[in-house]
Amino acid sequence: MLTSKTVSDFLTETASNSPAPGGGSVSALAAALGTALTSMVCRLTIGKKKYADVQTEIEAVLLKSESLREKAAALIDEDTFAFNKVMAAFALPKETEDQKSARSAAIQEATKGATLVPLQLMELCADAMPFVRVVAEKGNQNSLSDAGVAALMLSAACEGAAFNVKINLGSINDSEFVSTLRSKTDALLRSVQSYAQEISARVHAAFAG
Amino acid sequence: MLTSKTVSDFLTETASNSPAPGGGSVSALAAALGTALTSMVCRLTIGKKKYADVQTEIEAVLLKSESLREKAAALIDEDTFAFNKVMAAFALPKETEDQKSARSAAIQEATKGATLVPLQLMELCADAMPFVRVVAEKGNQNSLSDAGVAALMLSAACEGAAFNVKINLGSINDSEFVSTLRSKTDALLRSVQSYAQEISARVHAAFAG
Repeated sequence: MLTSKTVSDFLTETASNSPAPGGGSVSALAAALGTALTSMVCRLTIGKKKYADVQTEIEAVLLKSESLREKAAALIDEDTFAFNKVMAAFALPKETEDQKSARSAAIQEATKGATLVPLQLMELCADAMPFVRVVAEKGNQNSLSDAGVAALMLSAACEGAAFNVKINLGSINDSEFVSTLRSKTDALLRSVQSYAQEISARVHAAFAG
Repeated sequence: MLTSKTVSDFLTETASNSPAPGGGSVSALAAALGTALTSMVCRLTIGKKKYADVQTEIEAVLLKSESLREKAAALIDEDTFAFNKVMAAFALPKETEDQKSARSAAIQEATKGATLVPLQLMELCADAMPFVRVVAEKGNQNSLSDAGVAALMLSAACEGAAFNVKINLGSINDSEFVSTLRSKTDALLRSVQSYAQEISARVHAAFAG
């Protein structure tokens, strides 16, 4: 599993001449980092007298962000697994007509699978953003830069996942599937980017000096 | 060392109630991921007949991106180290007047150090972006989404590092140091974001369907 590798080995494997892990798994890792920072800000807020008023809210956010972190970490491996399935379908025999059509169907199926993993990641980023906003607004203000980095990681993860949905849609024949995924992708990206801009502007303003 | 931890442990440690590793180390990791993807696209381009014309240029980019990846990976640990130095300075004794002024000087010195690590990271992102543009334009177009994710990671890393420079500048008394770092930070961020927007627009356009 990719998450069992050291950070150093993960980087080396990403940089290697094998297409997986690639941008899809890297985007999932960025989302996991974003949710991890959200949890960190929660934990640096909980138990502090100054933030007594928001304890219950921040405790609830922590439960959510830890659950999203676990899902994002799982998507690091799922993305590479889905990509390898596409490669395996391309490697199927194509000598007879039957083999050709079975191979073609397997490629279509696997490619659809390879769009659904990054779509799940985009949904996860959209789910996580409201929690980042809560910790940026109400959490420990000594960690405001960390909340800001959480928003940046989730926004980059979401746009990266959108690239991965879209590069795969190009080879899918099912036009209804394609148009549904295109509009879902665009809506999710707009929502996540709007949160990210708001949070980022808040952080820059706080540090404007 | 943080880079010797598994990805899973790195995420758990980020999410913990200890402020380090935090947004600074996460930003350095994002930059390392961006340069790793740049190297991957180079390696998926080198040796391919279709890209014979750009072999020499892409080989030169690979050398640069691998060197930047190594530096970015080192900054993951350096950021946490610099942060811990600030914490250590705050923990110095403050009973006598001499102790108070020595502690105050140590805090100033350590906080300056804690701005210089993310500034280095921003410079690294600015150095890396022209190479990402080369691989997005001239590299293996099957990996265009990976080049796009590389740009997103470097841009998020650079803005995250800017947050970390700025949160520290707030507690530095040396006004010349502060104003120099503020203008360097703003210029680097503008440059990196302009590259990222250009590359991202290229990727979205290629997949517009």
